[in-house]
Amino acid sequence: LLIRSVGTDGDRLPHTGMMSGTEAGDPVPSAALSSPDADNLMLMFGRQAPVRVRLDLDVGFDGEATSHNVVGEFDGSENLDQRILLGAHLDSWDLGTGAVDDGAGVALVLAAAKLNADLETRPRHPVRVVLYANEEQGVYGGKAYAKLHEADLANHLVGAESDLGADRIYRFKSLVLPGAEAVIELLATHLKKLGIERELAEPAGGGADVGQMRKLGLPVIDLDQDAVRYFDLHHTANDTLDKVNPRNLQQNLAAWATLVYVTANSTVEFGPVAPTE
Amino acid sequence: LLIRSVGTDGDRLPHTGMMSGTEAGDPVPSAALSSPDADNLMLMFGRQAPVRVRLDLDVGFDGEATSHNVVGEFDGSENLDQRILLGAHLDSWDLGTGAVDDGAGVALVLAAAKLNADLETRPRHPVRVVLYANEEQGVYGGKAYAKLHEADLANHLVGAESDLGADRIYRFKSLVLPGAEAVIELLATHLKKLGIERELAEPAGGGADVGQMRKLGLPVIDLDQDAVRYFDLHHTANDTLDKVNPRNLQQNLAAWATLVYVTANSTVEFGPVAPTE
Repeated sequence: LLIRSVGTDGDRLPHTGMMSGTEAGDPVPSAALSSPDADNLMLMFGRQAPVRVRLDLDVGFDGEATSHNVVGEFDGSENLDQRILLGAHLDSWDLGTGAVDDGAGVALVLAAAKLNADLETRPRHPVRVVLYANEEQGVYGGKAYAKLHEADLANHLVGAESDLGADRIYRFKSLVLPGAEAVIELLATHLKKLGIERELAEPAGGGADVGQMRKLGLPVIDLDQDAVRYFDLHHTANDTLDKVNPRNLQQNLAAWATLVYVTANSTVEFGPVAPTE
Repeated sequence: LLIRSVGTDGDRLPHTGMMSGTEAGDPVPSAALSSPDADNLMLMFGRQAPVRVRLDLDVGFDGEATSHNVVGEFDGSENLDQRILLGAHLDSWDLGTGAVDDGAGVALVLAAAKLNADLETRPRHPVRVVLYANEEQGVYGGKAYAKLHEADLANHLVGAESDLGADRIYRFKSLVLPGAEAVIELLATHLKKLGIERELAEPAGGGADVGQMRKLGLPVIDLDQDAVRYFDLHHTANDTLDKVNPRNLQQNLAAWATLVYVTANSTVEFGPVAPTE
């Protein structure tokens, strides 16, 4: 299977990914072509002569190995049981260095937690940061965390994940009980100062990893970021630190620090919400 | 020798080139790093640990071979001896397909000649297009043409070359005798309609290949194009056809067709100008 890269750029550095399948013989050997190379191949198909493509693929499945989620937490000043759950993932696709997917997310949730931990008075609730292992090959870290903490759902107040680059946050969504609406409105008031609008038409999803807990009933908040550049960078050789715009990252972090501050100081129950598939 | 690519982009596709030298032992093995990779290396140098770089270079000099300039010409309607000399080069750097350097130039000078050849009445003077061989490794085609036609200088009216991409022409320069000023002014009047200004502070240079004839005394005109993107594309793997903007190419071609029409229908002598080194 040879596909046109799903990136929108004109670089000869294709967006790549993984092929999966459940039938016998799946997955088929697969590769992605950059847009300029796909254009060139299409031009060749338009001619009368036969077209021959030689594939030299150095990929495959080398068997299972153990990797680890990295979990850190600071205590709340008044509540020791119900924690805010912040997530991002440690692994990255191999062509670049993973600065955008998901190094930036790791930096954002860690920095948001630290800014709150360093306050003179710590927030009421504990804040937990989970840096998930092996998101890329099938959300293994997120699924393992949810399985391990299934009986522990009530000890998680609300969750949020950063895994779509490092550009500006432009809106946020929530999936919480009606009784938490006043806190979400307070959050909306603060985020509006950063140019962030509340989205009412769609519920939050929680992201790939934290979303595994949402399926069990964890309430979640999504900080949605501008992902226009995302598919030109992540899973390509161009996913490097220079692609992280410091000014955009600052706005993004301000939103995350605000989210943690408002939720971790709240006195309401956000969930549980309805479990889903 | 390991250098930072001279491109201005953030792609991990470096601008590359050639190392030359005249001393014994020259040239030294050399390579260029893309900006993101050079940034990364500089960060590593800032740490205390030693830095090791492994170079795997598949380049070198494989000996001489014969290649050929390709020359085409159509007769003038009144003058059979003094031709307009239009130039571009056929070879390209090996990482891309050479659409920008210098496929676009080849297309531009060929199309400008053809538009004039297809007129109901052909221009007074002959128009010659020379597609030079092996510009990239040392202007070999241009030097060979100048050597072959040294005694033939008077049979060339004026020269011009396209070898800086495919974007918009924004100004033009000339190097001609004062007696040809009225024709240059007429050209300026027409080019102004395309948004092109005349540059009076600098003389035209004629380009790498046609410039070899300029050194002997050939008058030349330069159509200068916007080269902001040029070093991000030429001599990189990104030098592919999708980088040629059709609208910019149209304006560029209109300028070239105008240059050919005005000069090939003129009745003045443009040169010879003073020979230079």
